Amino acid sequence: MSERISGILTPNITPVDALGRVDEDTLRGYVDWLIERGVDGLYPNGSTGEFVRFTADERRRIVQIVVDQTRGRVPILAGAAEANAKETIAACDAYGEMGVRAVAIVAPFYYRLSEQGVYAYFREIADAVSVDVTLYNIPLFASPIEVGTVVRLASECPRVIGIKDSSGDLPNMMRMISQIRPMRPEFSFLTGWDASLAPMLIIGADGGTNATSGVVPELTRAIHRNVQSGNIDEAMRLQFQLLPLFDALISVGEFPEGFRAGARSRGWNLGAGRAPLSDRQRDMVAAAQREIDALVNEAAHLTDASSNASGDTLTMPTQTIEQIVQKVMRQLGR
Amino acid sequence: MSERISGILTPNITPVDALGRVDEDTLRGYVDWLIERGVDGLYPNGSTGEFVRFTADERRRIVQIVVDQTRGRVPILAGAAEANAKETIAACDAYGEMGVRAVAIVAPFYYRLSEQGVYAYFREIADAVSVDVTLYNIPLFASPIEVGTVVRLASECPRVIGIKDSSGDLPNMMRMISQIRPMRPEFSFLTGWDASLAPMLIIGADGGTNATSGVVPELTRAIHRNVQSGNIDEAMRLQFQLLPLFDALISVGEFPEGFRAGARSRGWNLGAGRAPLSDRQRDMVAAAQREIDALVNEAAHLTDASSNASGDTLTMPTQTIEQIVQKVMRQLGR
Amino acid sequence: MSERISGILTPNITPVDALGRVDEDTLRGYVDWLIERGVDGLYPNGSTGEFVRFTADERRRIVQIVVDQTRGRVPILAGAAEANAKETIAACDAYGEMGVRAVAIVAPFYYRLSEQGVYAYFREIADAVSVDVTLYNIPLFASPIEVGTVVRLASECPRVIGIKDSSGDLPNMMRMISQIRPMRPEFSFLTGWDASLAPMLIIGADGGTNATSGVVPELTRAIHRNVQSGNIDEAMRLQFQLLPLFDALISVGEFPEGFRAGARSRGWNLGAGRAPLSDRQRDMVAAAQREIDALVNEAAHLTDASSNASGDTLTMPTQTIEQIVQKVMRQLGR
Amino acid sequence: MSERISGILTPNITPVDALGRVDEDTLRGYVDWLIERGVDGLYPNGSTGEFVRFTADERRRIVQIVVDQTRGRVPILAGAAEANAKETIAACDAYGEMGVRAVAIVAPFYYRLSEQGVYAYFREIADAVSVDVTLYNIPLFASPIEVGTVVRLASECPRVIGIKDSSGDLPNMMRMISQIRPMRPEFSFLTGWDASLAPMLIIGADGGTNATSGVVPELTRAIHRNVQSGNIDEAMRLQFQLLPLFDALISVGEFPEGFRAGARSRGWNLGAGRAPLSDRQRDMVAAAQREIDALVNEAAHLTDASSNASGDTLTMPTQTIEQIVQKVMRQLGR
Repeated sequence: MSERISGILTPNITPVDALGRVDEDTLRGYVDWLIERGVDGLYPNGSTGEFVRFTADERRRIVQIVVDQTRGRVPILAGAAEANAKETIAACDAYGEMGVRAVAIVAPFYYRLSEQGVYAYFREIADAVSVDVTLYNIPLFASPIEVGTVVRLASECPRVIGIKDSSGDLPNMMRMISQIRPMRPEFSFLTGWDASLAPMLIIGADGGTNATSGVVPELTRAIHRNVQSGNIDEAMRLQFQLLPLFDALISVGEFPEGFRAGARSRGWNLGAGRAPLSDRQRDMVAAAQREIDALVNEAAHLTDASSNASGDTLTMPTQTIEQIVQKVMRQLGR
Repeated sequence: MSERISGILTPNITPVDALGRVDEDTLRGYVDWLIERGVDGLYPNGSTGEFVRFTADERRRIVQIVVDQTRGRVPILAGAAEANAKETIAACDAYGEMGVRAVAIVAPFYYRLSEQGVYAYFREIADAVSVDVTLYNIPLFASPIEVGTVVRLASECPRVIGIKDSSGDLPNMMRMISQIRPMRPEFSFLTGWDASLAPMLIIGADGGTNATSGVVPELTRAIHRNVQSGNIDEAMRLQFQLLPLFDALISVGEFPEGFRAGARSRGWNLGAGRAPLSDRQRDMVAAAQREIDALVNEAAHLTDASSNASGDTLTMPTQTIEQIVQKVMRQLGR
Repeated sequence: MSERISGILTPNITPVDALGRVDEDTLRGYVDWLIERGVDGLYPNGSTGEFVRFTADERRRIVQIVVDQTRGRVPILAGAAEANAKETIAACDAYGEMGVRAVAIVAPFYYRLSEQGVYAYFREIADAVSVDVTLYNIPLFASPIEVGTVVRLASECPRVIGIKDSSGDLPNMMRMISQIRPMRPEFSFLTGWDASLAPMLIIGADGGTNATSGVVPELTRAIHRNVQSGNIDEAMRLQFQLLPLFDALISVGEFPEGFRAGARSRGWNLGAGRAPLSDRQRDMVAAAQREIDALVNEAAHLTDASSNASGDTLTMPTQTIEQIVQKVMRQLGR
Repeated sequence: MSERISGILTPNITPVDALGRVDEDTLRGYVDWLIERGVDGLYPNGSTGEFVRFTADERRRIVQIVVDQTRGRVPILAGAAEANAKETIAACDAYGEMGVRAVAIVAPFYYRLSEQGVYAYFREIADAVSVDVTLYNIPLFASPIEVGTVVRLASECPRVIGIKDSSGDLPNMMRMISQIRPMRPEFSFLTGWDASLAPMLIIGADGGTNATSGVVPELTRAIHRNVQSGNIDEAMRLQFQLLPLFDALISVGEFPEGFRAGARSRGWNLGAGRAPLSDRQRDMVAAAQREIDALVNEAAHLTDASSNASGDTLTMPTQTIEQIVQKVMRQLGR
C-alpha cells in the first residue's frame, strides 16, 4: 500500500513569453525555485496553470518539462482532463509513463452533469488507466462531485487514491474523511482553497494544492508543518497572514493574474497570462503591484521570525496587512 | 449592409459511430434531412453538438463536412470557441474561408470571467477575425455576457453581427433589442431556449437555434413562420406543444442524450453521445424511448393539421402530451 | 362558477405620514385616483405594500380602509399572510367578511420549506378558510411554489382559485396554464413581474398585479387591453416603454422606494417607506427624482397618442427613455 | 468593559401543547434541564425557536418565561427582530428591562436588502436601544450582513457587541476577527452552524448558538471546553460525532422538526412545531425516530468515556453512527 500524498503541492502557473508561448526556460527555473523553497510537490495543468487555455499538445509538453526538470526530487500530480473520457485516459497513461505520482482529473465542465453522470465519467476513466488518479472537485467551475460519489468511487476503484477539493467546504471534507479513511487509510485528502488551508489541515486533510504556494511557498509550508507538529496556534497565526494575501491576489484582474503579480514580487516574470485583459484591468493590475509587493514580502518573511512569535505580534502585522489590502481594494474601486 | 440571420438554425447533434468516432455518412444524411424539412440554417459545434467533447481537429472536420454537404442551400453558423483567443481566431478564419455565414463564440467557460474580462475577450477576437461573429450567451454553462457588454460590442465592433442568447431571459432580450436595433438594424437576435421560443419571437427576436429543431424541424419552423405572419394564436398553440416535448427531451440522461433519443424517433441513429452514462441512466433512456416516440410523432404531425385548428383542439393534444410527459417523469422517478 | 380575476390589480403602496404611521387620508385619496385611472382591482398588503414591515393590526386596518373606500367599484385581493397557518386563516376569514374578492397568500418565507411543506401549508389553509384564495409565488423572497404543487392544489382545493406568480418564468406559466386550465377553466393566472407583463398576457395569463400600475396605471391598463383585443404590436410597443421605467424604479434605494418616487412624480406624497435608508441612499433617491419625473410623465402620456402610433415613433421614445435611464444609472454609480 | 459572550448558548425550541399554544410548564422544565446539563446561555426566539411563526405577543411572553425561569443562572440572548425598526427597538428595550444579557437581531428578511440598507437598519436600531445588540447573520434565510458592514457597525456602534454568524463561512469569520478584535477586544464572535462548530472555535470564535445543544448539550459543551483548554484532537473527535447527528436532525421534515425529534429522544415532548407537515412528512419523522434515538443516545454518552479516548475509538463510533445515518437517509428516500 502506497503512502498518502501529503504536504503542499504547488499548482504552478504556466510561464509564457512575450508572444504568449510556453516559456520553457522560465518554467524550469521556477520549478527549481519552488522545490528549493520547500514545496512538497508540483501540480502542472491545474486551474492556476490555466490548463483550459492551453492546447492539448501544450498541456502535454508542460507536464514533460516539469517532470524532466523535477528529476524525482518531489512527486508530481498532473492535471489530465481532456475533451472527453477517451482523450483523458490517453493523457493519464502518457503522464503515468512520464513518471508522475498521480494525475488529477477535474469533473466535466461546461455542461453540469448529474451525480450519476459524474460517477459514470470517473468510473470509466478509473477502470481504464494505468496510473493513480485523484478526483478534483471545484464546484465553482465544474460539475460538483458529491460526497456520496467520492465515497462510492473510493470503495470501487483502487486507482482512485485521493480527492483534491477546492470547494472550501469543511463539513463535506469531514464527511468524506469519516467515511473513506476507515476503508482506505492510504486515501489522500487535499484542499485547494487557501482561505481555509489551516482549518482544513487541522480537521484532518493531508495537504493542499494552493495557488499562494507559488508565491509564498515558505508560508504555506510553515502552515502545514505547524499543523503536523501540533502547533495549532502558530499555524493559525500564519493562516491569518495568508488570508489577506490570498484575498488580494484573487481580486486582481482575471484569475490567476493576481498570482502572476505575486510571483513578480518574488522576482519571477511569468508573463501575462492567456485571458485578454481590458485596458482598465491592465491599469488596475499595474496599480496594485506595489501593494502586492509589500504584502508578499511581509508574508514571505513571516516564517523567519515565527520562532519568537507572541500573542502581541499576532494582531500587529494582521493590522498592517489589512490596511494595505483595504488600500488595494479602494484603489481597485470595489 | 447584409441581412439579418433569421429563422430557425439547427444546432445539430454530432453523429458518432459505434466506436465513438464522428460518423461522416450519417452527418451528411442528417444535414440533408434537416434542410429538406425546412430548417433555415445549420449550427455545427453548438452545445447540442457537444463541441467541448470533441478535439480541435474533430471540430474542424465537423464544420468542413457540414459546409460541404450543405452546398450553400442554407447559411451556416459555426461554433468556433477554442482553448484561447488566439486559437479561436484561427478557427474563425478557417471557418470563414470554408464559407460559413458567421461563427458563434461562446463566452469563456470554466473560469467565470468578470464583465471586463468577457468584453476584452470578445473585443480581441472581433478586432482580428475576417468573418462575422455572433456572441453566444449561455450563463448556465459559461461566463455571462451582460446586456451592457453586448451593447458595447455591438457599437464598437462591425464584425459582431448578432447575439445568440440561451438564457431564456425575455426582459434582457428586450433590453438588448431596444438599445441595439436603432444603431445596428442588421444586428441579429437569436434565442437558444426552446421553452420560450414563440414568446421570444413575438417580442422581436429574429430566430432561434433550438435543439428541438433537430428532432421536429417542422414544428419549430411553423412556430417561426406563424409569428412572422402575425398568427400569434397559432404560434402559441404550437409552442404549447413544443414545451412538453422539450421538457421530456432535456430530462433524459445527460444533455443532449434525450435529443439523440428524439432523433431516433425520427429514424436517425446518431449514436450514443460522448458523455459516459451509468447503467441506471442507460436503462432510463431505453425505458423512455417509447414515450419519446409518441411525443415526437405527435409533435411532428401537428403542423399538418394546423390549418383547421380550433380552440377545442388546443387543449386536447396538450392534455395527451402532458399525460405522457407525466408518465415519462414518473418512470424516471423524479 | 365564478369569473376569473383578470386585468391589472394594483399592489398599492401603503402611504405613511411623517411619523411613519399609516396615512389613512392619503390612502383613501390614492385608492380613488387609481380606480379613476382604470385599474381593475386593488391588492393591499402585497410586497409593494411592504406587508412584512407592518404589524398584524396595521395590516388588518389597511385592508379595512381600502375595502371601505373602494365601495365595490373594483374587486380587492388582500394579502393575508400572517405568522403561521392559524393566524393566516383568521386573517383570511376576517378579510372575507369585509368583502374582498379573494386573499393572496405568499408561501412561507424566512425558512425555505420543501415542496411537501409548501403543499401542507396551503392545504391546511385552503381546507379551513371561507374565502377564495390565490397562491402567491415569489421565489426571490419566499419558498418557491413548484408547478406540480400549484397543479395539485388546484385539483384538490376548490377554494384555491388562482396563482399570482412573480417569478417572471414564462415556461412555468405555460406549464401551469396547460395543466390547470382544462380542469379548472375559472382558475386565474396573474403575473407580478412587470418586466414581462405583455409577454405573460400574450401567452395566456389573465392579468397582472404590477407595482408600476401604482405609478402609471394608464400604461399597464393599455398593455392589458391591447393584448385582450389582439393588438400585439401595440401592446409590445407599450411594453418596451414600461421596461426602462420599471428598471429605473426598481433600482432606486430599497424596494419599493423607487415606486414611492414614481408616485411622487404623479403628485402623490406617499411618505418615506419603512426600510431605513442610509444617507447615501437618501441622496441617491433625491438625485434620481427629476429623471424619474421625466420617465413617468412620458410613460403616463404614451397611451394618449397610442392611436396614431407608427413604427417610427416606436424607436424614438424608447431611445429618449433609454438615454434618461442611462443617465439615472450613471448618477447612481452603477 | 464587559466580558465577551462565550460558550454554547442554546437556541431553544419553543415547546407547544396539543393545541399549538406555547407550553409554559414544559418550557420552564426544559430551561432547567438545559442549564443543569451545562449550557452557557439560552437564546429564545432564534431560528430554532421558530420566532417568525409566533406572534409578537407570544414572542414577548416566551422571553419573559425564559428570563423568569433562568433566574440569572446563565446569560440570555433574546431574539428581538420584529416587523420593522421601530417595533424591533421597542422589543429590544422591553427585553433589556427584563434583564437579558443582550438581544440578537437578524437582518431584514423577505426583501433582500442591499449592503447599504442592511447597514442603515442596524445603525438606526443600535443608536436607539438601551441594551447590547448582537448582529445575526444567516444569509440562507435573511439579507446577508457583509463582513464590511459588521466591521463598520462594530467601529461606530458601542451597543453592537457581537455577531452571531450562521453562514458557516470560516474565512469570513477570520476576516471579521482580524479586523474587529484589535479595536474591540470585548466583541463576541459566535457561530450558529453546528457542522463546523469545532473548527470555528479553533480559529478564534468565542462560542456557538447551536441547535444540537438543545438535544445533546453535553456534547457541544465538551467540544467548547476541549478547544478552550487546547485539546484540539479531542474536540475534533467529538465534532466528528456531532456532524452525522446534525446531518440527521436537519434532514427530517421541515426545520426544526428533526430537533424536536432529537429532544424526544432525551425524554422531552416539546410538541409538534408550527409548520404544517404533509402526511408523508409525518410518516417520515415517525419512521426516523428510532434511528434518531440511537444517534442521540450514543452522542449524549460520548463525553462520559471521553477521558480514555484513543485514536482507535475515534473511527469506530463514527462508523456506527454513519451506518445509522445512511439507514435514516435511505429510509427517507434521498
